[in-house]
Amino acid sequence: MQFKLTPQIAKNIKKWIANGENLQLTQLLEDVHFADIAEILEEISFSDAIYIIKLLDSEKTADILAELDDDTREKVLNGLSSKEIAEEIDELDTDDAADIISELPDQQKEEVIAQLEDVEHAKDIVELLRHDEDTAGGLMGKELVKVNENWTNITCVKEMRRQAANVDKVHTIYVVDDNDILKGRLSLKSLLTTPATTPVKEIYNHQITSVSVTENDEEVARIMQKYDLFVIPVIDEMGRLTGQITIDDIVDIIKDEAEKDYQMAAGLVEDVEADDTIFELVKGRLPWLVLGLFGGLAAASIMSGFDEALKKFPILFMFTPLIAAMAGNVGVQSSAIIVQGLANDNIKGSTWDRLLKEVGLSLVNGTILSLLVMAYGTIFNMEFLTSITIAISLLIVIIIAALIGTFVPLILHKRGIDPALATGPFITTINDIFGIFIYFYIAKLILPF
Amino acid sequence: MQFKLTPQIAKNIKKWIANGENLQLTQLLEDVHFADIAEILEEISFSDAIYIIKLLDSEKTADILAELDDDTREKVLNGLSSKEIAEEIDELDTDDAADIISELPDQQKEEVIAQLEDVEHAKDIVELLRHDEDTAGGLMGKELVKVNENWTNITCVKEMRRQAANVDKVHTIYVVDDNDILKGRLSLKSLLTTPATTPVKEIYNHQITSVSVTENDEEVARIMQKYDLFVIPVIDEMGRLTGQITIDDIVDIIKDEAEKDYQMAAGLVEDVEADDTIFELVKGRLPWLVLGLFGGLAAASIMSGFDEALKKFPILFMFTPLIAAMAGNVGVQSSAIIVQGLANDNIKGSTWDRLLKEVGLSLVNGTILSLLVMAYGTIFNMEFLTSITIAISLLIVIIIAALIGTFVPLILHKRGIDPALATGPFITTINDIFGIFIYFYIAKLILPF
Repeated sequence: MQFKLTPQIAKNIKKWIANGENLQLTQLLEDVHFADIAEILEEISFSDAIYIIKLLDSEKTADILAELDDDTREKVLNGLSSKEIAEEIDELDTDDAADIISELPDQQKEEVIAQLEDVEHAKDIVELLRHDEDTAGGLMGKELVKVNENWTNITCVKEMRRQAANVDKVHTIYVVDDNDILKGRLSLKSLLTTPATTPVKEIYNHQITSVSVTENDEEVARIMQKYDLFVIPVIDEMGRLTGQITIDDIVDIIKDEAEKDYQMAAGLVEDVEADDTIFELVKGRLPWLVLGLFGGLAAASIMSGFDEALKKFPILFMFTPLIAAMAGNVGVQSSAIIVQGLANDNIKGSTWDRLLKEVGLSLVNGTILSLLVMAYGTIFNMEFLTSITIAISLLIVIIIAALIGTFVPLILHKRGIDPALATGPFITTINDIFGIFIYFYIAKLILPF
Repeated sequence: MQFKLTPQIAKNIKKWIANGENLQLTQLLEDVHFADIAEILEEISFSDAIYIIKLLDSEKTADILAELDDDTREKVLNGLSSKEIAEEIDELDTDDAADIISELPDQQKEEVIAQLEDVEHAKDIVELLRHDEDTAGGLMGKELVKVNENWTNITCVKEMRRQAANVDKVHTIYVVDDNDILKGRLSLKSLLTTPATTPVKEIYNHQITSVSVTENDEEVARIMQKYDLFVIPVIDEMGRLTGQITIDDIVDIIKDEAEKDYQMAAGLVEDVEADDTIFELVKGRLPWLVLGLFGGLAAASIMSGFDEALKKFPILFMFTPLIAAMAGNVGVQSSAIIVQGLANDNIKGSTWDRLLKEVGLSLVNGTILSLLVMAYGTIFNMEFLTSITIAISLLIVIIIAALIGTFVPLILHKRGIDPALATGPFITTINDIFGIFIYFYIAKLILPF
């Protein structure tokens, strides 16, 4: 049922394009889903991709274009004229159409819009382009089925028949009043199970969750998830039904959100992919590494302040990577739990409770780890005073690292900054510096140097 | 439109429960969405939550129960008899019903099933319980609307009227043959726009994507995302239509997947939440910390093998945390990019290309970072030979850390192990050890010790 691009098929496609064997190509791709063709185009050269786009019917290629990843699409669109792009846009739903047009250079935008055939469609797209990308207005499409509350059941069916021609799949039938104000929804069930002359007013459901056109996209995602909605209507400032958002767009937002947090935790400046250019990868990776380097240099400076220790207890310096690693790991664990808790909105209780809990938890973990260090010291014949010094310092470093890891994201969140910033290299670097300072400071208190 | 639990409302709820003022309670909760009530129940005490569940209509409380998080639901169900649980289950869709029953202790499972009122519903639930939780069969529900290809349009509408009574929302009308084999789908559009006597055979769409009942849940998620599906039919070994999966369940899987990767990267054993008990948190956090500790001890042992350096070039030891931190950060960056690339299926090109790219990238990043170290050395009057030694070592450590970070997840993936395992503390620890060894080894080659 699903198409799989084998090396043999890839080879054939290449050959057919080179020889201009269009019949073979169209026959192969005829029954392949547009999402699969999009995957093929991402594997082959851009000139071959453009060849296929020009060859196939624009009804199909429009959907393929919408499915491509941004980089590939940009390059493919570069190979098409404004007229050709307009033909593709004519076939697309308004939300995808607006997304693609918004990626074009400013001048080309106007050229493409001017060449659209369907004026209503063009008007809708222009309206959508006015909204910010990360708002409900930027996500919504104009395609929907709506009925007037003053109609009867049979009028609805007639009207829906007309409207459905422009809508791929009907998920919800919206009910509006004469001023287009959203009043509720009509279930297919009621439509099927009531007599043809029943007025819509008597059978529609008044309870409907909607979002404002200016609502933030993450909030839309939260609402749709919470209420298990497949579609959500979007209303304007006056309460008029202006579009609808479908869950497939929300799935993309949820994935992007999760990836953003993951990348921050891994020390990547957003949105680096394995197949980006080296220059893009350097831009995505270097900033956090420079931060880490400054942290390491700061740690080196701190240590050079304890040069007395170097003469009398050089063994302490063998354990600095251990102290730094534990401070870093504990900090990342603590901050990750807070970041996830904030994202899922399940952090309850006061800050004070949280502090006590982290201290309790770190005491347990820290004690176990310190005992392991003592065991290592015994096995390798370290001086008792030295190994107990390292063990005690480790315990205290762990507690403080956990507290820093817990509170930095909480504080960022309170100030309206994305707490995910405080995971990964950020918290590791802070904790490295604090950890090493605390380690030597405590050692100095216990050991005679 | 949305309900917000204010401290005042929370106080009132508590008071009304204490005083048994049921009328006030039911009036307040009457118009509140079940997902919002579920949120309220997670905030109040378990006894209060059970009070509310017993008070409200089971038509509403069933949905509330399905919406609760696992921990809260377990405790609430503990406060209900098998008879009471069966009453809730009777109201639920089969997929939610099966999920809840599967969480009950074995003996109670049978008691609850025995007390279900609707025999057909009970049969469906028992069938669903047979499937693994993480397969299509474990995700699907039995509620769906299907028509026979041999019917006419008007028969379909009549039959759908009957079936729709058991289905909340009709997303797709499936077409089957006399043996219940899935043949395609009937769009609402065709149903609305063709004469009543047209046979279904002539108007239905033969192209339909389905999954097998044994398909892995992550694969189902991938397919539904790729083809932008809101529902997907599930077929058994003989191709018979046996259930359908809706996108809201898939959204949960996508979120869980992303959280699992994030937690691994942060060094958490899966599924720790901020509000777990200290014991659960220790279990979730200690294992990776112990690994990190062993890494630190290994690093200490390696360093004690270079004790000559300690006498002649003690300054080298001030930079071990920097070397370890950079090795760790670079490794996590590289592995995270690979893990995300594998998850999104966008890693192209040969392993050899990838190797060259990582080396190139690390050369750029490493050179910039090494020059910064040289600058630091100049500013703080370090010996030139020492600072160039540290700079060169850092460059080589960065290249090797990047290669380890790239290849460990790729190798794990090839062997069928989750590559996300190779992010976070795992890669950091390996790279700490390698990094420190390489650092001192190269220092020994350059400096006279």
